[in-house]
Amino acid sequence: MEITTLKLRRVAIDTYKENVAYLHRDCELYRSEGFQALNKIEVNCDENGTSVIAVLNIVDDISITRPEELGLSEQVFHQFAVSEGSAVRVAHASAPKSIKAVHRKIRGERLQFEDYLAINKDIARNSYSKIEIAAYLVGCAVSGLDRDEVLYLTRAMLQTGEQLHWDEPLVVDKHCIGGIPGNRTSMLVVPIVAEHGMLMPKTSSRAITSPAGTADTMEVLANVDLNPEILHHLVTHERAFLAWGGTSKLAPVDDILIAVERPLTMDSPGQMVASIVSKKVAAGSTHLLIDIPIGPTAKIRSQTNAMKLRKLFEYVGDSMGLTLEVIITDGRQPIGHGIGPVLEARDVMRVLENHPLAPLDLREKALQLAGRILEFDTDVRGGQGYRLARDILESGRALQKMQSIIQAQGASDYTARPGKLQHQVAAQAAGRIEAIDNLQLAQIAHLAGAPLDKEAGVDLHKKIGDTVDKDEPLYTIHAEFNADFNFAKQASETDNAYQIATLS
Amino acid sequence: MEITTLKLRRVAIDTYKENVAYLHRDCELYRSEGFQALNKIEVNCDENGTSVIAVLNIVDDISITRPEELGLSEQVFHQFAVSEGSAVRVAHASAPKSIKAVHRKIRGERLQFEDYLAINKDIARNSYSKIEIAAYLVGCAVSGLDRDEVLYLTRAMLQTGEQLHWDEPLVVDKHCIGGIPGNRTSMLVVPIVAEHGMLMPKTSSRAITSPAGTADTMEVLANVDLNPEILHHLVTHERAFLAWGGTSKLAPVDDILIAVERPLTMDSPGQMVASIVSKKVAAGSTHLLIDIPIGPTAKIRSQTNAMKLRKLFEYVGDSMGLTLEVIITDGRQPIGHGIGPVLEARDVMRVLENHPLAPLDLREKALQLAGRILEFDTDVRGGQGYRLARDILESGRALQKMQSIIQAQGASDYTARPGKLQHQVAAQAAGRIEAIDNLQLAQIAHLAGAPLDKEAGVDLHKKIGDTVDKDEPLYTIHAEFNADFNFAKQASETDNAYQIATLS
Repeated sequence: MEITTLKLRRVAIDTYKENVAYLHRDCELYRSEGFQALNKIEVNCDENGTSVIAVLNIVDDISITRPEELGLSEQVFHQFAVSEGSAVRVAHASAPKSIKAVHRKIRGERLQFEDYLAINKDIARNSYSKIEIAAYLVGCAVSGLDRDEVLYLTRAMLQTGEQLHWDEPLVVDKHCIGGIPGNRTSMLVVPIVAEHGMLMPKTSSRAITSPAGTADTMEVLANVDLNPEILHHLVTHERAFLAWGGTSKLAPVDDILIAVERPLTMDSPGQMVASIVSKKVAAGSTHLLIDIPIGPTAKIRSQTNAMKLRKLFEYVGDSMGLTLEVIITDGRQPIGHGIGPVLEARDVMRVLENHPLAPLDLREKALQLAGRILEFDTDVRGGQGYRLARDILESGRALQKMQSIIQAQGASDYTARPGKLQHQVAAQAAGRIEAIDNLQLAQIAHLAGAPLDKEAGVDLHKKIGDTVDKDEPLYTIHAEFNADFNFAKQASETDNAYQIATLS
Repeated sequence: MEITTLKLRRVAIDTYKENVAYLHRDCELYRSEGFQALNKIEVNCDENGTSVIAVLNIVDDISITRPEELGLSEQVFHQFAVSEGSAVRVAHASAPKSIKAVHRKIRGERLQFEDYLAINKDIARNSYSKIEIAAYLVGCAVSGLDRDEVLYLTRAMLQTGEQLHWDEPLVVDKHCIGGIPGNRTSMLVVPIVAEHGMLMPKTSSRAITSPAGTADTMEVLANVDLNPEILHHLVTHERAFLAWGGTSKLAPVDDILIAVERPLTMDSPGQMVASIVSKKVAAGSTHLLIDIPIGPTAKIRSQTNAMKLRKLFEYVGDSMGLTLEVIITDGRQPIGHGIGPVLEARDVMRVLENHPLAPLDLREKALQLAGRILEFDTDVRGGQGYRLARDILESGRALQKMQSIIQAQGASDYTARPGKLQHQVAAQAAGRIEAIDNLQLAQIAHLAGAPLDKEAGVDLHKKIGDTVDKDEPLYTIHAEFNADFNFAKQASETDNAYQIATLS
């Protein structure tokens, strides 16, 4: 046999969630094996019996990969866990077996639990290319998943990752399906229900396409990248934490899918419900409140679709043994004043401090959500949750609890102040605010630099129903860098996101 | 403004049809702009006003890209046509505008001509990532295209590329939808109809996943990579050529789509019909014969589906002003004896030479197709085409014409002989051949090295209906390299592709 082994080399290129391998064009195997760029190959190391799948790029520069070497990008090199210089063999990777199920889905067939499990396991071990993942997601989105398929998918996702157990009868969580800027209710709900004594170990995401996730905003106040010891300490002493969930191994497939969903801006109901419910069950939650905002620029735009989604959440939640409630909320405009980590953290602290400038809509929504969660406690009478939540907030006990949590997580030494570059966007005519475009405002705040620049974002001065005079400021753009500032200003000049009805 | 320009650098990595840009992690722009790996960026050169879209990889090695540089992979560097060291600016690339139409298709909507035109133009200028292309293709495959959408898509594809004009009333072509190994009828049809005096400027593809395309097989005999002057000479003096169409600018989008279709092994009827018809119209054809083989391992497996596809071809062809005929043929097994460039070229030449070992099925099919094309000539009576084709072949005039074409294209100095490593696959029991698996035989020939090794492939000794004794050879595997030889042998041991019914 002419086939020889290649020497493994780490190539310092970050290809994110895609495994890329590099082979020199003069490598003997390149020609004899008929490899082509973008082929999928399987890399095997006999030394420790591991193997990994990667997409091939062909290299003409020996400073990147020499003819006798096989280069691996950072991600796949770390997965492979074999040292540089080790002897590896390469072969054509056959398509993952479960791709046949994906083709059946594309043809409109209904898949079984075993199909979803096989697909998710193959994705988790990086056997799917980005193209194959896109085919899977789009196939599911277009053909649709019936509710039993969503349940199969949920179970499959749960079985693919690790699972936490808290050994408590009541572990609560909340989740908003997203799309509403400034919607930082978790940072209010967690201290309120933890102060009541409920266990609420809250992990949150960082923003991907939005101007801030709860983890980004919490990070303004405290460390969110916490090790298991600190998490355990927080649960024992505070009954809660507000941590970043990113490094957990609870939902390995989700992390991979998102790399494809993000550029596609795709969110199909089946994938969304399965992803949320499986992640919450994996995190050990027993009781879950789902927030579905409705509005013309929210993810869900009609009562009919919200009801369909609610039923799907209920069916899957019940079947998974979760106590799940759905609340449908007003998603016509951003919640609170600030959009962007620092501005949102300011709003949250003002609500906790019962500050006169606290945004009332954020306060009200947080109390409603907290009230519903408090009623998961059998000792709380139906209908009494809201009042109980309000008492905890108004008495200052919620603020104290938040301060304890911040101290226990490690208070940030970050001095929070909104971005130094400021631009006021003014009303072009007098009238009443009729509508505010969530997507456009999120985009403006994102262009201004949020969430990477925590100080960047948008601070709203007017909400729906308010009247404005001509040239009265609608909102202020905050940024730290000129380039971002100019991008955000330009976007607001094209479309300032506000619709104003002139008063007759 | 903090934003500065970067120095362009060519990175010698072949990323095939995907544009990849490399930025060092310490590049000032990386942090301030909030770039992430797999983001799409737009690279602009003020010097000559060009811009290009690429997917970002982050680099930690200055030997690949330095912090003050922007690296571009081979493909995108060549597209960009700006010299190394030029000053370039980078910015976040917004999603191509036409992606909204893709999302409408995914939601099941019908798209208009303007939508397909916008999508194809954006794909042609490399604004779509592989993920976005996959979403488009899968969306079309699952939602389906009605026949007017296929027509819109055909027109859009035609408008996206260049177009040839021959200034003749009758320019003929044929196209087989593929999937049948050994089906090299074009190399017989072209000399027959050109000898009759018809203009048949035939461009063909190289094999992608199959063991040989017509261009691969013709290359055994003659040069197929021809410049416009030679093509013009051939048209004038021979009325035909058999060239590789790969470098033409007639179908730029097709070349890009195939990089995604290939790993997905996807072929939706709408995309297929639009791609074929637009390419033929772009090549200046006025009359087109489409060959649809049916068989259990062909692309089309039922008469119903073949009829549907025929109607679709007819509707689109008529609407585009083509004279289009469809012929439905027997696709139950490979055509001819050889599979792989050298073996197929041998079969073709034997038919032309009226050699006693010429495969009768290849000869018969070629005569039928040529006969139908000859009847596009108004001077040929309906039903007389076949006899006319047979006369041209049997008289040796087709062979002479082929030899003239070969000389004019530049005869190959390649000494054709089948691969030196040979292995006979024998029948495990006596009986009659019931079925032959096209896909498995194509796979075995491909593993043996075809089409990269022109000598590699499979030579069939038995076809459907033949009787065999136990241990009688069914076919011979030919290869040039041991590794390929062993892969092919292993595949034939797992499944030899023959189904034999024992005789009672």
